[in-house]
Amino acid sequence: MNNTVLEPFKPEPLATQATRVSIDLGARSYDIWIGAGLWSEAAAWQGLPKAAMAVVVTNTTVGPLYADALKQALEPHYARIEVVSLADGEQFKDMAHLQQILDAMLEWRADRKTVVFALGGGVVGDMAGFAAACYMRGVPFVQVPTTLLSQVDSSVGGKTGVNHPLGKNMIGAFYQPARVICDLDVFRTLPAREYAAGLAEVIKYGPIADMAFFGWLEGNAEALVARDVAVLTAAVRRSCEIKAWVVGQDEREGGLRAILNFGHTFGHAIETGMGYGEWLHGEGVAAGMVMAADLSQRLGLCDARLPQRLRNMLQQVGLPVQGPWLGAEERLAAAQRYLALMRLDKKAEAGAIRFVVVSGQGLAQVVEAPDAMVLEVVQQALTH
Amino acid sequence: MNNTVLEPFKPEPLATQATRVSIDLGARSYDIWIGAGLWSEAAAWQGLPKAAMAVVVTNTTVGPLYADALKQALEPHYARIEVVSLADGEQFKDMAHLQQILDAMLEWRADRKTVVFALGGGVVGDMAGFAAACYMRGVPFVQVPTTLLSQVDSSVGGKTGVNHPLGKNMIGAFYQPARVICDLDVFRTLPAREYAAGLAEVIKYGPIADMAFFGWLEGNAEALVARDVAVLTAAVRRSCEIKAWVVGQDEREGGLRAILNFGHTFGHAIETGMGYGEWLHGEGVAAGMVMAADLSQRLGLCDARLPQRLRNMLQQVGLPVQGPWLGAEERLAAAQRYLALMRLDKKAEAGAIRFVVVSGQGLAQVVEAPDAMVLEVVQQALTH
Repeated sequence: MNNTVLEPFKPEPLATQATRVSIDLGARSYDIWIGAGLWSEAAAWQGLPKAAMAVVVTNTTVGPLYADALKQALEPHYARIEVVSLADGEQFKDMAHLQQILDAMLEWRADRKTVVFALGGGVVGDMAGFAAACYMRGVPFVQVPTTLLSQVDSSVGGKTGVNHPLGKNMIGAFYQPARVICDLDVFRTLPAREYAAGLAEVIKYGPIADMAFFGWLEGNAEALVARDVAVLTAAVRRSCEIKAWVVGQDEREGGLRAILNFGHTFGHAIETGMGYGEWLHGEGVAAGMVMAADLSQRLGLCDARLPQRLRNMLQQVGLPVQGPWLGAEERLAAAQRYLALMRLDKKAEAGAIRFVVVSGQGLAQVVEAPDAMVLEVVQQALTH
Repeated sequence: MNNTVLEPFKPEPLATQATRVSIDLGARSYDIWIGAGLWSEAAAWQGLPKAAMAVVVTNTTVGPLYADALKQALEPHYARIEVVSLADGEQFKDMAHLQQILDAMLEWRADRKTVVFALGGGVVGDMAGFAAACYMRGVPFVQVPTTLLSQVDSSVGGKTGVNHPLGKNMIGAFYQPARVICDLDVFRTLPAREYAAGLAEVIKYGPIADMAFFGWLEGNAEALVARDVAVLTAAVRRSCEIKAWVVGQDEREGGLRAILNFGHTFGHAIETGMGYGEWLHGEGVAAGMVMAADLSQRLGLCDARLPQRLRNMLQQVGLPVQGPWLGAEERLAAAQRYLALMRLDKKAEAGAIRFVVVSGQGLAQVVEAPDAMVLEVVQQALTH
């Protein structure tokens, strides 16, 4: 998966057995394994880097559910397995908690071969990956993502890091895993709201890169909501393929990678305006994609069908398609608040807001847009 | 410079103008500039990554001497230049001081293009390089080494990082500079003892890789002591070439890179046994090389001339050729203390001490040796 052209989507035949996506990055190539019940499949754990010790990084929510199952999968391969459990939440993704991982590894006398396993969502993956990147200047690590969002988004692409009081993800490294193991069984315990929020990023891959995939998602909306294993296997696989293709073009973030932020400019304004945690990231992205699609239409880049199809799809999986009022009584004032928040975003350049817009044919680009048009888009999309 | 065979040494014609060593690492290739008065040569500062801001990382000893001169060289290229000054000393090479650099950069709103300049010795280079590696997942950095040791050793090879209470250099990254600028004028202010300690690492490159270079150093010992610019230009250049050749074979440290530790096994025992700071690193390495050469002879790998030539050369530049008594009255007990310290070294594997030994023809290898032989070597080399 490192071609300049994305391979066409081939969903058939649907099957429940595990599948693999190969990420071709030369010496840093790795596989993403996707399937239900993978943790108890011996093959998924074979061929990993050999070592005397494995360190599992998890959090206080995921650890009690899955750390034992993961340890069982690792026992045939590592003589010693240690677990470090972090406090759960984005607010703990900082240097102090990174240090907690490194201190623990040093106390256990982890060596240069020790393999780090990230068991959790995006926060755990980012922190464990960065710890692995820094420990003795780099030890192998394996992503074991336990949320839909981390399986289809954050575990692919090699971004690791922590937040700083002055900005998100300001300190980190580009560091690739040795493998990603996506066991779909974890969705059995994932709360409905978090599951739906993960689907927002799956749906996103359609408009930006692959409308055939989007059409297939539309046809399988009910199965997605029911967490059907065969449909999820194909959906996660295709999402990883598209993300891998995009970051393969742009590993260190100069150009194409920006299209992954479709819906995110509006979405971040919602997240920030509501206070972090009120709206989940995927929920903000869902409402934000509707706005971005509407903006695309107003700019003459696509016709009215795309915003409509997107709204329908998002509603079918239980995601919001309208933005919240951000602390204003007048509709125009509420929309102006969105505009002000978007201008503060770190991706804005000298106050110019950059929007990812789409063609309706699976192509995306980054543009600026007139304030008046953006204000109309937001006013239109606010809840009544 | 990434060939499997080291190019032969060509010292002639000696010249005082600046010279360059190209380090071939594909997309991460860079040049080492070597010469007296380089900071005021415009060419040395051209073609560096463009940015609105440069951040100079230095310490409270070097900063007052050179920060203004460096700022002057940078002014034509960067609209804004900020300086962060760290406390001077290996004991401050830790996460807290790394954080000091990152905090300052965030407060100045340094962006992804900001270039970090490391102005100082090995400690500053390691910390500034690691900060550059982590800041927004990697910004460009330039090494401006101000000690002989850092010019010929630590600024080449891409190792960056900080210490942890449980071990040296435990947290860090392999991260290559965009350029290394070695201005030989800095030696005018370098204390004699530190200068001599740097020469130990220059001399080291002879026995491990290039006896023609060693012979040339012998012939130029007086000029070296006098800090003759033409001789220093050639000596620093050849040292960088050899180090670059070794790490080019073994960038992430598996095999050949270990030969750079010639003299270091004994040397670390001296540094640790005396308490850090009593003997300079290069002084320990000097006495350690004499022991390692003696060990090589006893193992039948070289004849008596090599230890003799090494002793003469080191003495000519004012370096110690005998080891200190490490807190014991009996000669055997003192030697046993060396052995105990070497067993604790982090490069020892399961208690087996590994020595770099040499052939007398410019070839090195890593071996284990009988305790009795090592004890003899150390007893022989202790001061009377």
